[in-house]
Amino acid sequence: MHENPQPHAGLFLTFEGGDGSGKTTQARLAAQWLSDTYAHDALLTREPGGTELGQHIRQLLLHGDDMGPRAEALLYAADRSHHVHTVIRPALSLGRTVVCDRYFDSSIAYQGGGRTLTPKTIRDLSLWAVDGLIPDLTVLIDVPARVGAARREGEPDRLERAGDDFHDTTHATYRHLAEQEPERWVIVDGIGTIDEVAGRVRAALVDRLGARVTTRAQGRS
Amino acid sequence: MHENPQPHAGLFLTFEGGDGSGKTTQARLAAQWLSDTYAHDALLTREPGGTELGQHIRQLLLHGDDMGPRAEALLYAADRSHHVHTVIRPALSLGRTVVCDRYFDSSIAYQGGGRTLTPKTIRDLSLWAVDGLIPDLTVLIDVPARVGAARREGEPDRLERAGDDFHDTTHATYRHLAEQEPERWVIVDGIGTIDEVAGRVRAALVDRLGARVTTRAQGRS
Repeated sequence: MHENPQPHAGLFLTFEGGDGSGKTTQARLAAQWLSDTYAHDALLTREPGGTELGQHIRQLLLHGDDMGPRAEALLYAADRSHHVHTVIRPALSLGRTVVCDRYFDSSIAYQGGGRTLTPKTIRDLSLWAVDGLIPDLTVLIDVPARVGAARREGEPDRLERAGDDFHDTTHATYRHLAEQEPERWVIVDGIGTIDEVAGRVRAALVDRLGARVTTRAQGRS
Repeated sequence: MHENPQPHAGLFLTFEGGDGSGKTTQARLAAQWLSDTYAHDALLTREPGGTELGQHIRQLLLHGDDMGPRAEALLYAADRSHHVHTVIRPALSLGRTVVCDRYFDSSIAYQGGGRTLTPKTIRDLSLWAVDGLIPDLTVLIDVPARVGAARREGEPDRLERAGDDFHDTTHATYRHLAEQEPERWVIVDGIGTIDEVAGRVRAALVDRLGARVTTRAQGRS
């Protein structure tokens, strides 16, 4: 279940969580911290929409009200495939550290948990799309669904409009995914100030990855 | 291999062939003939691009030069999934006749035959995308690859630029697909005038589908 057919030189970190969990902010702060403190050549990117093609796909996804669940899953997978093929794998192969705001676990939690397709189906499709590229560590910014909902601002998009039950299911699916693969996931309490949560993330990265985080600088001039 | 989990009331015909084979013209003429002669309520559609979403996807596909084969396959599958979900299945469920210019066999022949993914992989992905919807009859307008190339006009797109070897492989894959599923396919000689080929298509439809073609009018007022 947890095999990487094409091992990579760099470090691949993903951040997951519900809307309003703060994961986007935490992904950015972690990339900055790795770069500033341990001289990682860090690339911050995101899904969906981490490429120009992905930006187009993201627009189609957010406004395609009559889209069926299979078409939606395939569009997310296409975005992810292109993102991995043209951005993430090239960076990892150069030894860079890639920090990605959402990756395939988002699809499993949102499409495989909250809608009609099974988590296994979405996982299989996603892994095929990325030719088996699995993160070295996935950070779940854990916030109860209703806290996340209260934090959200602005006009809700199609997924956000899906309602509280949907987000409760998403939250439960994330927890379940993390429990199923504890060696890949770390759950970070997302309640508190941005600095408090960022401190927990930094501690978790050092705790779980050790020298892969802290000695990166020694390999560089 | 040839099962339809959701049987449909209408008749579902697809036309396949290489670029320049004349299949688009023949699909149009066949739909017109079924409508004029036997009072079919015929819907002519096409892939990629048979929906508004599909038009956007088609643009992404034709100009995405750095796209990997998996992203390409997923975009075709997303277009097809949406097309089936919002256009083809609703029409078939009303008893209409759907004539589609290219369907999943195009993906098998173009992506599974000429590029790096296997025909089986593309077929499995396509069948998942359309939730198992298989045509009642698929017409292959059979033209040697080099004749098709000579007939093409205008600026070549990305697939057309791929060269003669690619088109030879596509042609061979189509023949192979037709031989593997003879009960679903009919091969029509595409050499000759438009009227000559259209006459062969009409004869093939009556020969292979019989009363499903010719008695459609009796069920209507």
